[in-house]
Amino acid sequence: MPISLGELAVSVGCELIGDPDTVVNSVASLRNATPESLSFLSSASHANQLPGTKAAAVVLRLADVDACPVAALISDDPYASYARMAALVCPEPAFSAGMHASAVVADSASVAASAYLAANVVIGERTSIGANTVVGPGTVIGADCSVASDCRFVANVTLVKDVRIGKRGIFHPGVVIGSDGFGNAMTSEGWVKVPQLGGVQIGDDVEIGANTTVDCGAIGDTVIDNGVRIDNLCMIAHNVQIGEHTAMAAMTGIAGSAIIGKRCLFAGKSGTVGHVTVCDDVVVAAKTFVTKDVTKPGTYAASFPADNARSWARQLARFRRLGDLIERVKKLEK
Amino acid sequence: MPISLGELAVSVGCELIGDPDTVVNSVASLRNATPESLSFLSSASHANQLPGTKAAAVVLRLADVDACPVAALISDDPYASYARMAALVCPEPAFSAGMHASAVVADSASVAASAYLAANVVIGERTSIGANTVVGPGTVIGADCSVASDCRFVANVTLVKDVRIGKRGIFHPGVVIGSDGFGNAMTSEGWVKVPQLGGVQIGDDVEIGANTTVDCGAIGDTVIDNGVRIDNLCMIAHNVQIGEHTAMAAMTGIAGSAIIGKRCLFAGKSGTVGHVTVCDDVVVAAKTFVTKDVTKPGTYAASFPADNARSWARQLARFRRLGDLIERVKKLEK
Amino acid sequence: MPISLGELAVSVGCELIGDPDTVVNSVASLRNATPESLSFLSSASHANQLPGTKAAAVVLRLADVDACPVAALISDDPYASYARMAALVCPEPAFSAGMHASAVVADSASVAASAYLAANVVIGERTSIGANTVVGPGTVIGADCSVASDCRFVANVTLVKDVRIGKRGIFHPGVVIGSDGFGNAMTSEGWVKVPQLGGVQIGDDVEIGANTTVDCGAIGDTVIDNGVRIDNLCMIAHNVQIGEHTAMAAMTGIAGSAIIGKRCLFAGKSGTVGHVTVCDDVVVAAKTFVTKDVTKPGTYAASFPADNARSWARQLARFRRLGDLIERVKKLEK
Repeated sequence: MPISLGELAVSVGCELIGDPDTVVNSVASLRNATPESLSFLSSASHANQLPGTKAAAVVLRLADVDACPVAALISDDPYASYARMAALVCPEPAFSAGMHASAVVADSASVAASAYLAANVVIGERTSIGANTVVGPGTVIGADCSVASDCRFVANVTLVKDVRIGKRGIFHPGVVIGSDGFGNAMTSEGWVKVPQLGGVQIGDDVEIGANTTVDCGAIGDTVIDNGVRIDNLCMIAHNVQIGEHTAMAAMTGIAGSAIIGKRCLFAGKSGTVGHVTVCDDVVVAAKTFVTKDVTKPGTYAASFPADNARSWARQLARFRRLGDLIERVKKLEK
Repeated sequence: MPISLGELAVSVGCELIGDPDTVVNSVASLRNATPESLSFLSSASHANQLPGTKAAAVVLRLADVDACPVAALISDDPYASYARMAALVCPEPAFSAGMHASAVVADSASVAASAYLAANVVIGERTSIGANTVVGPGTVIGADCSVASDCRFVANVTLVKDVRIGKRGIFHPGVVIGSDGFGNAMTSEGWVKVPQLGGVQIGDDVEIGANTTVDCGAIGDTVIDNGVRIDNLCMIAHNVQIGEHTAMAAMTGIAGSAIIGKRCLFAGKSGTVGHVTVCDDVVVAAKTFVTKDVTKPGTYAASFPADNARSWARQLARFRRLGDLIERVKKLEK
Repeated sequence: MPISLGELAVSVGCELIGDPDTVVNSVASLRNATPESLSFLSSASHANQLPGTKAAAVVLRLADVDACPVAALISDDPYASYARMAALVCPEPAFSAGMHASAVVADSASVAASAYLAANVVIGERTSIGANTVVGPGTVIGADCSVASDCRFVANVTLVKDVRIGKRGIFHPGVVIGSDGFGNAMTSEGWVKVPQLGGVQIGDDVEIGANTTVDCGAIGDTVIDNGVRIDNLCMIAHNVQIGEHTAMAAMTGIAGSAIIGKRCLFAGKSGTVGHVTVCDDVVVAAKTFVTKDVTKPGTYAASFPADNARSWARQLARFRRLGDLIERVKKLEK
């Protein structure tokens, strides 16, 4: 959407150095930008691309203004300011309220007049869909769910039942919310399924990535607080609680009944065992697995970086001889 | 569903201490229970919640009866007994036999009169759906599949082709069964796909969690035996065999042609390489990867718990100097 | 499909020792083969099954001919030759061009007359579907996508928007392509979503396994080159580039902006952090995580094989005392 630099500066609250009437209609990296695109510089590693950029304007820090050959939008946090401007330059495609002829809505469900249900959407009994919410094609929202306003289900999302979602949530394709937790009791005749009878409670401004699964509680709810961001292919097990503004990168797995604090960051392939508590402001490094309570904010790690395979094999052999080494040192000490 | 304590005691085979006519209609944790709910005590860590519970009745061990302020249902295995009672108190919602107008059934398919096909279900050629089986919305069951009685496909499940499923199976949203295995032959012109021509054989009482994938065999079948339980986001590769009553927690991956025994437990994020055999009664700890045959029952592990990042960095440096340390000890020994 | 050994030999370019008019109509392992099936011997570990096979013919190396009791199809690479023959013996089921009545196609979309759209397929605005492409049931292809000829979307696949796919691609159920990358800017009010505005570019002959996700670029495209093979439940993050003929086994995760070379092999559960470059011809072992640029072809590893749990616990304790051990050696050296 064509928008002037002046409008962008005012909307996002940046100082503009340049012509407020210049119009941009796309975003691009510094290197690929054209005179119609907005770009940004937030990381020092791209600073060398600034002098040669052909962008209409660049969002950057005050310190970088002198090196900027084009209009500058000055921000203390250029990445966040760029994010806000990009949403203005390239808004989500508009939709018309209503529903596709193939959508199937249960009699007792209620769908806001301003919402949109795409092709092959199925809405279950007693479920409500809020204003301006867009439910993409193939999405199934089961019984007794409540979805507040301005949510977006991209396509082929499944909410099983008893899922309550706040405002402005974004749910990517293949997301499953409210599936049964993994509850089984061993008996002499094999496993007996433990009925999973709770629901899922999701706050405002939550985004969940493609093919991530969030199980319902066994008894009581699984809870994801306001502003949480979860990437693709993550697993949130039954009765997990995730605090406000925590973010989890792809393939993170949080086992049952774990309680995760606010503003935590879980890097890719990380996770926790069940029934642990992780306090606020904890960073868990990639591939790291939390096995007991974390009570102090900070960064936690436990993974080994890839090594040349031959060198790794030698290292593994040394590791296995650790007991022997300790014995030898003991002997020397005597 | 309202049900009396007397009925519960008789159905599950527990001794009741209390009024058999008391009615419960929900389940709850000891802490949140109301006078209409059934609760249970199976883990010592919750024993302190027993004296204060407001439940109608608590399923517990004989040893805990004295501390129980309300009616007691006595069981040697309170968790399993609770599971069976919960299924009576909160049964699966009833369904009416038949099919939604939008279901698409191939001419040569056969669907039992007592089965239910929900909206947008697609059933392929020569496929049969057994009595009382419920196929949830958006589920696609391809050609040449056979599903026995009393199965439940929650929603958006995909069976590709040639999948045979026993009785009482439960398949959660996003499950894919019968997808092509990863078979590729490298040639000078790149990869040549190896056609994946086998099927998948699944026994009775199998439950598979959301977004888990089970590939078909390359030649011959992938086999999942009776009573197996698989959690979300697991990967069962082509020609894997999984023995009776084995359970796998979320994000477990079993590579091609691995043979897994009976009553094994795979914790979260664990797995095996291909072509290994794991005997019966093996427990694989979280994040642990089996790389060769396991011939002895027992617990196997190989993961490092999360550590403070600075301390981990130091530890990693020490680990890397192991070779040097060994040399120094050798020198001292001389 | 019944086909003579003579035809197979000519089509794939193998020497035949045996009657060219013998007809096969299935494939089987050496052990389970019948007089109507084609089998193969590529791995020495199955050589002992050759003398007893009942197959009509076996694809094998010249060196194994003498031990073959039936007709032989001789190849330097029996596995690849078998793969090609199997595709002739058991071809993909035929389809009729056209579309199911329940398919929903946007007015501005174009679908080749020879393509097939199955039940409940949804095709978005300005999207084009090429000749002979089969779009399986429940598949959603969003706006502004272009799919070339001879592709196959098995079922319940989702292409979000702006995805361009070359010829002969195969996409298994639950695959999501073009979902938003995980872009978030932290501010004092919480995360601000960074709009994900790029697309996805996929070359010819690419196959992507069940429930794998490929995110769109943040700015610019995510790129998967010709001949790439990706297994189930993998994650390809925004702006990743994957070079020709690279293969990734199940549960591999490639983080944002990583650049992966040609002919690389990523074993199961492996991955990379973001923004790294991996050169051509690199093998990453199972469960191994690449954390910095790899500039030399070769094999890289960093995982610990499963150990008896008690022995692992002891080993872990030794590992934790490494610092102490180093101190003791230092003391001895003084």
